[in-house]
Amino acid sequence: MSAHMPIAAHPMDGALARLAEIVGDRATRAPGVLADHGRSEAYHPASPPDVVVYPETTAEVQAIVRLCREMKLPVVAFGAGTSLEGNAAALHGGVCLDMGRMNAVLKVNAEDMDVTVQPGITRKQLNAQLRDTGLFFPIDPGADASIGGMTSTRASGTMAVRYGTMKDNVLALEVVLADGRVIRTAQRARKSAAGYDLTRLFVGAEGTLGVITQVTLKLHPQPEAISSAVCAFPDLKAAVDTAIAVIQSGVPVARVELLDAVMMRGMNLHAKLGLPEVPHLFFEFHGSKAYVAEQAETTQALATEFGGEGFQWATTPEERNRLWHARDNTLYAGLALRPGGKAMITDVCVPISRLAECLVETEADIAQTGLVAPVVGHVGDGNFHLLVLIDPASAEELARAKAFCDRLARRAIALEGTCTGEHGIGFGKMDFLPLELGDAVDVMRLVKGALDPDGILNPGKIFRPRDRQQGDAP
Amino acid sequence: MSAHMPIAAHPMDGALARLAEIVGDRATRAPGVLADHGRSEAYHPASPPDVVVYPETTAEVQAIVRLCREMKLPVVAFGAGTSLEGNAAALHGGVCLDMGRMNAVLKVNAEDMDVTVQPGITRKQLNAQLRDTGLFFPIDPGADASIGGMTSTRASGTMAVRYGTMKDNVLALEVVLADGRVIRTAQRARKSAAGYDLTRLFVGAEGTLGVITQVTLKLHPQPEAISSAVCAFPDLKAAVDTAIAVIQSGVPVARVELLDAVMMRGMNLHAKLGLPEVPHLFFEFHGSKAYVAEQAETTQALATEFGGEGFQWATTPEERNRLWHARDNTLYAGLALRPGGKAMITDVCVPISRLAECLVETEADIAQTGLVAPVVGHVGDGNFHLLVLIDPASAEELARAKAFCDRLARRAIALEGTCTGEHGIGFGKMDFLPLELGDAVDVMRLVKGALDPDGILNPGKIFRPRDRQQGDAP
Repeated sequence: MSAHMPIAAHPMDGALARLAEIVGDRATRAPGVLADHGRSEAYHPASPPDVVVYPETTAEVQAIVRLCREMKLPVVAFGAGTSLEGNAAALHGGVCLDMGRMNAVLKVNAEDMDVTVQPGITRKQLNAQLRDTGLFFPIDPGADASIGGMTSTRASGTMAVRYGTMKDNVLALEVVLADGRVIRTAQRARKSAAGYDLTRLFVGAEGTLGVITQVTLKLHPQPEAISSAVCAFPDLKAAVDTAIAVIQSGVPVARVELLDAVMMRGMNLHAKLGLPEVPHLFFEFHGSKAYVAEQAETTQALATEFGGEGFQWATTPEERNRLWHARDNTLYAGLALRPGGKAMITDVCVPISRLAECLVETEADIAQTGLVAPVVGHVGDGNFHLLVLIDPASAEELARAKAFCDRLARRAIALEGTCTGEHGIGFGKMDFLPLELGDAVDVMRLVKGALDPDGILNPGKIFRPRDRQQGDAP
Repeated sequence: MSAHMPIAAHPMDGALARLAEIVGDRATRAPGVLADHGRSEAYHPASPPDVVVYPETTAEVQAIVRLCREMKLPVVAFGAGTSLEGNAAALHGGVCLDMGRMNAVLKVNAEDMDVTVQPGITRKQLNAQLRDTGLFFPIDPGADASIGGMTSTRASGTMAVRYGTMKDNVLALEVVLADGRVIRTAQRARKSAAGYDLTRLFVGAEGTLGVITQVTLKLHPQPEAISSAVCAFPDLKAAVDTAIAVIQSGVPVARVELLDAVMMRGMNLHAKLGLPEVPHLFFEFHGSKAYVAEQAETTQALATEFGGEGFQWATTPEERNRLWHARDNTLYAGLALRPGGKAMITDVCVPISRLAECLVETEADIAQTGLVAPVVGHVGDGNFHLLVLIDPASAEELARAKAFCDRLARRAIALEGTCTGEHGIGFGKMDFLPLELGDAVDVMRLVKGALDPDGILNPGKIFRPRDRQQGDAP
């Protein structure tokens, strides 16, 4: 209970002792643990925290945040470690809150089709626990990310075209503020017009405005039937035009994924799909048996109009799984194109009317830059990912890949799109945000300053305290 | 160009002269105009502004806001004047920005299914202009509200169960900040993970954080077929249980409206529907011809399970229109129950599992209070409206109705719901917000303080500078 610990030689030892008062032995400075929480993608340097803490309750998170505010220590919440833009990197050291032990399903409200969970639960863990309810949580960013992390990066993925993103599927949050107060952003009503939309303020804030300790999510009925389809196209534009036509026709496609010729080559190598190495669309339809059949028929007719060939339609789980399992492993399919390489993964999102143009320019850039960079896209949203395959030992190649990604982000912004469709800004895309949003970034700074005046929450992310001006030192 | 006008006898005359430099003769203090912009619902006192200005461009709005900041004058944006909680009342006088002249459709992007409009356009004007595009804007709050007003109150209405609310359908905003800077909250990509969700911060902020000057909206394909259905139920619970079952079955019902026995009596009086005076559900289904038929069949089967009777299904526009025209005129249907009366309109929203309970308690309260108060509800969202019919000349009746509405709001909050499903807080529901959200209201205050430090934007709305504490003077 003593608030006056003797001052230790290393300031972090003092913090560790204070943290141990809160969480006992669930605070550590063990080098292996610190390294695990500081690892990142190939092209981001490691940024380990000074301490890793494993809270088990909101009250513990609250006490930790209060302590950090008192000691002016950074607090970085950490989920499954699957983010791609250094979103949870401890750039300024400090305390990493590993939320992995706060992974309970707190309450399923089946009639209301919602569930309240702790943030450390992963989406697959959640869906496993929901299996018998007739409901499911549809957001699928690929990795088995934590719900807290997905909330904080406004994640989406393959099914966003039908079910929306985290923005659309978070009903309410419990958040520990920088001053240690706990708030709930909303009650459980399906909609509300009660004041500012605080739920959406914290969704996508990457832990810079508060630490999320509970998430209430919308659930959806498990579809009675699921069917999938695959179709080859003569070029990217034909594939994109088909996706546009399908969506405009009112088919509520559950997934529509674009894979370019290079990615198809990787998938053939990795998953032995034996499909032609030209652009493909993979579709999934959800609904009643009759309705998924109708959706597939409408889609096939539209695909044929735009030159689609070899439309294959799968309704058995086995056939579907073979196809989507391959799609879900595009990372390995990509890596199969360059054994020993590493993938620099990036994404952008543009209005769908500009997507073909963006893809064609990007493929020309890839060719000119001499990179191998397969494309996989959530084409219904105008969102696509690139896996830039690099030799991690080559600084020259890393620089070339980074310059390419820089041009891609600028291209997307110029086409009225965004530099990050679903990975957040982290620190990886911080330089593009002012290009995309201009003075709106200042509004973010004002909000941050009001909610976290000491700047302890995940510092160094999303935006700089102010943007570099001409004449500033580099 | 002179910045130094002679000081006038009334400070507002000085403001008027400065405003005239910006907008010419589109600024007025004519008493009739002021009164028109200060009128409100029966139970809110009139609150006229000191000046009404009709800007035509963003640059004019910008100049007006800058002037108001300099002169510390309140700025209240005004749309169609259809809000229900005094959301646009000029409580502290000042400048009313009537956005009616900024009502252009700026750009339809049919392939992207979006449109950018000025905020003064009404939803019916917008849909009339979209008719030939194959697309439509689905949010229908009943009144022909302006898009800016609907954005600012996070409006929703009958089709929210299928298409979401304004929160889900605004893609980006142009906003004039309190300091006169103009920002865009997002580009046009269908989704983005780029920093704080500023779009959602301004949606529902009721003009207290900025003045909206452009709105980019998502559009939806006009459905190939529309069918509607009506069904009678023995009691409210059977109707609510049917709605729950329909939604859980995966039927993407476009509208599902609950009308209680009293409302059915009003509708029979007003629209000669000749339906039994028991609770009813009105349904609408959107989709292909085959799919709307399937949806209606599934719904009928479920309704029958819960004791529904006399399920009637209409597919011709004439039949549908007769039904929905009656539904859209529930205000007049309600007033038919008390000729000469006025309707105090309120709404709440609760988790659908608590809806029957909330409705049954509320009807008992109505009976005990001796009020006539028909119910109409967007039952798929757990949202319902009450038209409390009062004699506007009776202070006693007004007080009784207000006390009833107060109990209703508290009841909804106690059932994990919200005191306002879709009307905003305005000043009518300001006392309930802290009951609903506790310390979260302080986060709203912090955001407001950061973005509008002088408090010029729509002052006196949503929350008080701080909540009354025990011991405060009343």
